[in-house]
Amino acid sequence: MIIMGIDPGFAITGYGIVKYEGNKFSVIDYGAVTTEASMELPNRLVCLYDRLQELIKTFNPDAVAIEELFFNKNIKTALAVGHGRGVAVLSAAKAGVSVFEYTPLQVKQSVVGYGRAEKAQIQQMVKIILNLPSIPKPDDVADALAVAICHGHSYRMNAYLNRR
Amino acid sequence: MIIMGIDPGFAITGYGIVKYEGNKFSVIDYGAVTTEASMELPNRLVCLYDRLQELIKTFNPDAVAIEELFFNKNIKTALAVGHGRGVAVLSAAKAGVSVFEYTPLQVKQSVVGYGRAEKAQIQQMVKIILNLPSIPKPDDVADALAVAICHGHSYRMNAYLNRR
Repeated sequence: MIIMGIDPGFAITGYGIVKYEGNKFSVIDYGAVTTEASMELPNRLVCLYDRLQELIKTFNPDAVAIEELFFNKNIKTALAVGHGRGVAVLSAAKAGVSVFEYTPLQVKQSVVGYGRAEKAQIQQMVKIILNLPSIPKPDDVADALAVAICHGHSYRMNAYLNRR
Repeated sequence: MIIMGIDPGFAITGYGIVKYEGNKFSVIDYGAVTTEASMELPNRLVCLYDRLQELIKTFNPDAVAIEELFFNKNIKTALAVGHGRGVAVLSAAKAGVSVFEYTPLQVKQSVVGYGRAEKAQIQQMVKIILNLPSIPKPDDVADALAVAICHGHSYRMNAYLNRR
C-alpha cells in the first residue's frame, strides 16, 4: 500500500510518500510544496493544488493521510492554514484518493507509542521507522511522514480487528 | 461587467451574481451552496468546488469578489471557514477569473457609506440598490451581494482615478 501523508500549511505544505508492505515501511519520496509570500492568494492556492495533483498522479497513493489541526494561538494563522488544508483535501478528493484524518494524539501514539511525545521524539522515530540517514527538514516534512506512518499502523490495526 | 460575490463559509457559502452597467446594478442570480453536515470533509469540499465552478461557467463573471474574514470568536470556526474560503478562491482562480478581496470595513463603506454600519443596514441597502422585493435570505446571500456591490463601486472608483 502506498500512503501519502500531508502536513498542511499555507506557505509550506509538507508531504511524504511511503510504501507499507508486510508490516514494513519504506520511503518513496518526501518534500515540501512552498509558495512565495509575494504571490497573491489565488495563485498560491492554485500552485498548491496543482503541485499536489502532480504528486498524486506521479505516485498514485492508495490513501492520503492528513493531520487534524488544533490551534490555541493565532486565529489569523488558523484561517490561513485552513485555506491550505482545504485545498489539500480537495486536491486528494478530486483525484479520487480517500482521505483519512488523524488527530495529533493519534499520530503521536502511533509513531512513538506515547500520546504526549515531544516533537523531537516523533522526528527521531520517523527517521528510525523509515531508515533515513537524517531527520527530514523542514519539520513539516517529518510531520507529513509521521501521519503517513500513523495511517499505515491504523490500517493494519483495522484489518486485524476486522479479521477476528 | 458581471460580478460574482461570494460569502465564504463551510456549511453555507452565499453567492450573488450582479450586472454593473452605466453606474447601475441589476441582479442576475443569487443563492447559497450548502453541504450536509453528515457528509465527510473531502466530499463537502468537492461539492462546494464543483458547484462554484458550475456557477462560474454558467454566468461567466468578469470578477469574483470575496470578503476578507476576521474572527474574534472561535478558532475552530476560523479553521473550518478557512477550508471553505480556500476552496472558493481556488475555484475562481482555476476558472481563470480574477479574485478581489475586500475587508468588512470596505464593504460597509461601499454599500452603506459608513464603516460602522450594522448588518441590518447593509441588508436594507442591498435590497434597495438591487431593487429586490425583499432582503435575500440567509444572511450569507445578502453578504455575498454586498461584496459584489463593493467591487462594482471600487472598480468604478479606480477607473475614475486612473482617468484623471
